[in-house]
Amino acid sequence: MKKDPLSVELLSIGTELIKGECVDDNSPYLSRVLSKIGLNCRQFTVVPDFPFSSLVQTIRNSFEKSDMVILSGGLGPTDDDVTREAIAKALGRRLTLSPPLLGQIQRNFTKRHLRMPKINERQAYLPQGARVIPNPIGSAPGILIEKRKKILISLPGVPQELQAMFKKAVLPYLKRRFPHLVPSLSIRLRTTGLAESRVNELLQDLVRRERKITFGFYAHPGIVDVKLMVEARNPQGKNILKKVEKAACERLKPFLFGKEDQTLEAVVFHLLEKRKQTVSVAESCTGGTLSSELTKLPGSSRHFKMGVVAYSNESKVFLLGIPKKLIRSHGAVSEAVAEALAKQAKKLGKTDFGLGVTGILGPSGGTKEKPVGLVYIAVNFSKRLFSQKFYFVGERETLRVRVVKAALDMLRRELK
Amino acid sequence: MKKDPLSVELLSIGTELIKGECVDDNSPYLSRVLSKIGLNCRQFTVVPDFPFSSLVQTIRNSFEKSDMVILSGGLGPTDDDVTREAIAKALGRRLTLSPPLLGQIQRNFTKRHLRMPKINERQAYLPQGARVIPNPIGSAPGILIEKRKKILISLPGVPQELQAMFKKAVLPYLKRRFPHLVPSLSIRLRTTGLAESRVNELLQDLVRRERKITFGFYAHPGIVDVKLMVEARNPQGKNILKKVEKAACERLKPFLFGKEDQTLEAVVFHLLEKRKQTVSVAESCTGGTLSSELTKLPGSSRHFKMGVVAYSNESKVFLLGIPKKLIRSHGAVSEAVAEALAKQAKKLGKTDFGLGVTGILGPSGGTKEKPVGLVYIAVNFSKRLFSQKFYFVGERETLRVRVVKAALDMLRRELK
Repeated sequence: MKKDPLSVELLSIGTELIKGECVDDNSPYLSRVLSKIGLNCRQFTVVPDFPFSSLVQTIRNSFEKSDMVILSGGLGPTDDDVTREAIAKALGRRLTLSPPLLGQIQRNFTKRHLRMPKINERQAYLPQGARVIPNPIGSAPGILIEKRKKILISLPGVPQELQAMFKKAVLPYLKRRFPHLVPSLSIRLRTTGLAESRVNELLQDLVRRERKITFGFYAHPGIVDVKLMVEARNPQGKNILKKVEKAACERLKPFLFGKEDQTLEAVVFHLLEKRKQTVSVAESCTGGTLSSELTKLPGSSRHFKMGVVAYSNESKVFLLGIPKKLIRSHGAVSEAVAEALAKQAKKLGKTDFGLGVTGILGPSGGTKEKPVGLVYIAVNFSKRLFSQKFYFVGERETLRVRVVKAALDMLRRELK
Repeated sequence: MKKDPLSVELLSIGTELIKGECVDDNSPYLSRVLSKIGLNCRQFTVVPDFPFSSLVQTIRNSFEKSDMVILSGGLGPTDDDVTREAIAKALGRRLTLSPPLLGQIQRNFTKRHLRMPKINERQAYLPQGARVIPNPIGSAPGILIEKRKKILISLPGVPQELQAMFKKAVLPYLKRRFPHLVPSLSIRLRTTGLAESRVNELLQDLVRRERKITFGFYAHPGIVDVKLMVEARNPQGKNILKKVEKAACERLKPFLFGKEDQTLEAVVFHLLEKRKQTVSVAESCTGGTLSSELTKLPGSSRHFKMGVVAYSNESKVFLLGIPKKLIRSHGAVSEAVAEALAKQAKKLGKTDFGLGVTGILGPSGGTKEKPVGLVYIAVNFSKRLFSQKFYFVGERETLRVRVVKAALDMLRRELK
């Protein structure tokens, strides 16, 4: 095994990708999973299936430059799927029919009471010396080739198939093939309620002091992730990482809601499950998005009981029983109305918690006193009824996300 | 100007991209906009900011191979933003301070009553001979360099900034610079309610007969797009495209809901606006997602009045007044309950339309008679009350999207 880190390149093949009709989700996925076992990607490349000669050249170049190339896409049965042929050409190997593979593909169809169409026969051809990566979901098998200590892996472009094949066959293979790989040491801390610059500031002294740790800051609407990474070969790596993680958590709490891949809605979900408590929602400006986040995960019906999207004032009055006078004197976007929404949600849903949201997401409808981005979020729990006023920044869609994260976070803080 | 089509390469720079922390949305966006003016991308590449020498080499290679390279990312003020330096090095030009650019950046801060931090000074450095692409939103200016008839453009990675700068400055520049470009001739037809294979089948005879048209089929959850493309230089191109478009629309109607970039929710929005009609929703399994789609666009409050997420049976009874007996005898997932939901939504929301949705999205909760994926969607309009039964396939998240699209489409068909 080489002592240098292995260089890995990901190559996504598809006209729909290069035309911008679809986004390449496969490379980010593969990169994340690979980095967990200690393999770091050097480059992602997206190219079309056509012209064939360029595709061949791209595969050849990537294979020359890198220790491992993982291709995705172009393994389907139709004429425009030419990855098999391009790999064979790029590596100077003949494509030959694999009778056992053909049998497998046929059996996949038979299992579903279907006859294999003639065109699927193409998928049973393999470059000489290649191994098959079985596809548990679709008809396109994957391809694995080792040549001069280099590796080429080709997977179908459909994300579910690619992910299933990668987890089931490719990962175990890579772990066997490279037993001495040191899994990367990193931890992702997830925060909400702070701007990226503020998160940065809170950790500034650590960033300066802890030179062995690489810090990454990644901002998404309403969420800022902090990634702490340490050189895996450092014998003290684990300890340093633990120590810095602890210090970072200290500084970030109470904005820290989770780690690694935990989502805010999943954290809230599990807290509600653990406490066996229930929630109802009355939302205005978020238009159903808050309920939608609270019902995202299977099993939500155990704790989410009811949501009302009280978009019009009449619906606030008529459906939720909010006094007309209250809306008239305070305005629909006000602390008083947010709290009334939370109270009525709790009451009508007969739940432990009630959440109320009202605000102006724009682009129009803002005034000097009540600008676009002004949002009130209220929580009613047992006898406690309180609200918070926010000034969010962003376009309508971003604003909706920010408001929902803020509401989920208010609930999370009450549940802790 | 060269007679060959110009070769364009897109290069996205960022450690967060190569680590899989973010998805590169910029390249698909740029590719779509470029193809509209007749420029087709040959390759997308994603590389990290680090190591610097590799970044320089990648920029140099791309610039060698292509007529135009558009870079995104790495123009920020912090130390890890090194695209400016890498471009200068790759093209063999010195970086020098541009006093007018520095003035501009300072004024941007002053306008927001802020003092420019010292680190932002870096953003006023330009490779010699480069032009500035103004950034109307953020602090990072873009860079434009022409060298040996080749073009290098560098834009910030934040999508809103990149898009604004591209539309405002880069597109007009490209049109001036290449007056003889022939805009690509294509049309995208958007369908819902059909599987990709079925759309394919419906157009099969056209695909076979019309050899001058290239057909692309792109499936998203609940949506299948068909793209018809014709060689722009073909003098008959426009006519052929029109003819085939008409034939395709004929075959796809009534599943065709829009063209080009129209979304289903936008189509429904505009139909409601045009007819000055209003809608309310009572949804169960979709958990707020249907209301959320109907309130996505600014101005929705004119026609969307109320949504109820009746997740629990009690909320169906208590909040919407659906008879307990009805739920007991038919089950919550039934035609009868879907229709009752639609009826009560219309009544309580005092709107022209009422939509009702109930179903099982799984993964658990399915039975032999009522499997996961079984969904009833009902519409109430004036005296008409009707429903449709669906068996959707997919995972929970995909199912939610499919159900919402189906409900929006039922509404659309009534509005036409």
